[in-house]
Amino acid sequence: MISQIKSFLFLFIVLVLSKTVISARKPSKSQSKPCKNFVLYYHDIMFGVDDVQNATSAAVTNPPGLGNFKFGKLVIFDDPVTIDKNYQSEPVARAQGFYFYDMKNDYNAWFSYTLVFNSTQHKGTLNIMGADLMMEKTRDLSVVGGTGDFFMSRGIVTFETDTFEGAKYFRVKMDIKLYDCY
Amino acid sequence: MISQIKSFLFLFIVLVLSKTVISARKPSKSQSKPCKNFVLYYHDIMFGVDDVQNATSAAVTNPPGLGNFKFGKLVIFDDPVTIDKNYQSEPVARAQGFYFYDMKNDYNAWFSYTLVFNSTQHKGTLNIMGADLMMEKTRDLSVVGGTGDFFMSRGIVTFETDTFEGAKYFRVKMDIKLYDCY
Amino acid sequence: MISQIKSFLFLFIVLVLSKTVISARKPSKSQSKPCKNFVLYYHDIMFGVDDVQNATSAAVTNPPGLGNFKFGKLVIFDDPVTIDKNYQSEPVARAQGFYFYDMKNDYNAWFSYTLVFNSTQHKGTLNIMGADLMMEKTRDLSVVGGTGDFFMSRGIVTFETDTFEGAKYFRVKMDIKLYDCY
Repeated sequence: MISQIKSFLFLFIVLVLSKTVISARKPSKSQSKPCKNFVLYYHDIMFGVDDVQNATSAAVTNPPGLGNFKFGKLVIFDDPVTIDKNYQSEPVARAQGFYFYDMKNDYNAWFSYTLVFNSTQHKGTLNIMGADLMMEKTRDLSVVGGTGDFFMSRGIVTFETDTFEGAKYFRVKMDIKLYDCY
Repeated sequence: MISQIKSFLFLFIVLVLSKTVISARKPSKSQSKPCKNFVLYYHDIMFGVDDVQNATSAAVTNPPGLGNFKFGKLVIFDDPVTIDKNYQSEPVARAQGFYFYDMKNDYNAWFSYTLVFNSTQHKGTLNIMGADLMMEKTRDLSVVGGTGDFFMSRGIVTFETDTFEGAKYFRVKMDIKLYDCY
Repeated sequence: MISQIKSFLFLFIVLVLSKTVISARKPSKSQSKPCKNFVLYYHDIMFGVDDVQNATSAAVTNPPGLGNFKFGKLVIFDDPVTIDKNYQSEPVARAQGFYFYDMKNDYNAWFSYTLVFNSTQHKGTLNIMGADLMMEKTRDLSVVGGTGDFFMSRGIVTFETDTFEGAKYFRVKMDIKLYDCY
């Protein structure tokens, strides 16, 4: 009996200690396994002069002349976000925020925006910011907060330029990976 | 004696395992119960031309003409924050940051700012960003970080427009709920 | 033997409970002990008219006249970040983002930017925002997210103005303390 207790105790120690260590590591966060993951397409149609109907974004500053890559051009947007590549598909969210160009010898940008979901499937927002290193095939921005269905979420958004048509239209694939879900 | 040990062990297992599971769940986060909750009022007095004395904010861009709802107007502010609705009350914090209008067929805005507390009661900051969906009665923004007394805080700020007087003055009720407290 | 088991059990209870309680408190977060800590120097060289070669930042708005401390001047930057005070040292990162002045009766600023690391030692980004209360000797901003080697990081950046030469150049010591490391 005594030896049974001893072996039981040993097993128990191993069990409890391993669980304790796991809990100390925050089990929900692992770089390889997001708790939510979905892909969305962001469509930006720049306002010219006479296209209020289609435009979804507009520049509000003029580049001050630091290089030839639009350094300092700041764009405010309310852009449709869809689940496929067609910008005329029913949007599942709006992307509201701004970006600007910030490099003097190449195209490079910086974004801060909110994904606003307001459908039967999702209500709530995701708040995102980070550098858009356009010379890289993919680049990661941070999901720094969320509300509603995305209460207190955090994670990563991976940008990939899907297409662009001059200065008029571009489309970005946004691969959204949340690692903090509540 | 042996049976006493056995029953004690059983109780102990239940006790330790339940504690371990609780710790794995991050006890401080629940959508219903913030660890800190307080309401503040934000007062924005727009700079015109000859009112430097009273003004607390100023537009720095001109709307480029995308619709009739100030799309692209960007405002920088250093606004007083009070615990009641009177903008002449002693401020308990300053709100420093910016907002812009970003919708072409209705009023809608986007904020990013810092609440700066510097009183005997609170020293520190809360950093906040998100969409201000003005057509909704209430809307949620994210508290994405904090410093000082609000070290590493996260949470939600619920905006509710309390009043506005044309383009000159508006007041927002900010219901601040922190779910990460240290 | 029974008494040996008893004293062993007692020790074990103390051990496990203390570990469990520690794990419930999120062991990695303590205001005194960051999981990563490093100091970097940020160099800002303002674009004038004829110095494209050296300039790393440029104003994109004109102050609207609210006071005499550049209220409303918004600057976009792609600034070198070094580990010593010499701005000609090999940069270990770029700081990409913006700041603006936001006080009518003193100098005060607000920053939001990304530290972009792309060396053999570090690849990834840190996303930062907060008030730069320039009248304070040191002031804290929030690290609200990270990517790559800084996956999901959070923490504090303590700013200290190291030097400034008129409106042309300034250097800030950034003491980066991460409390969430993965």
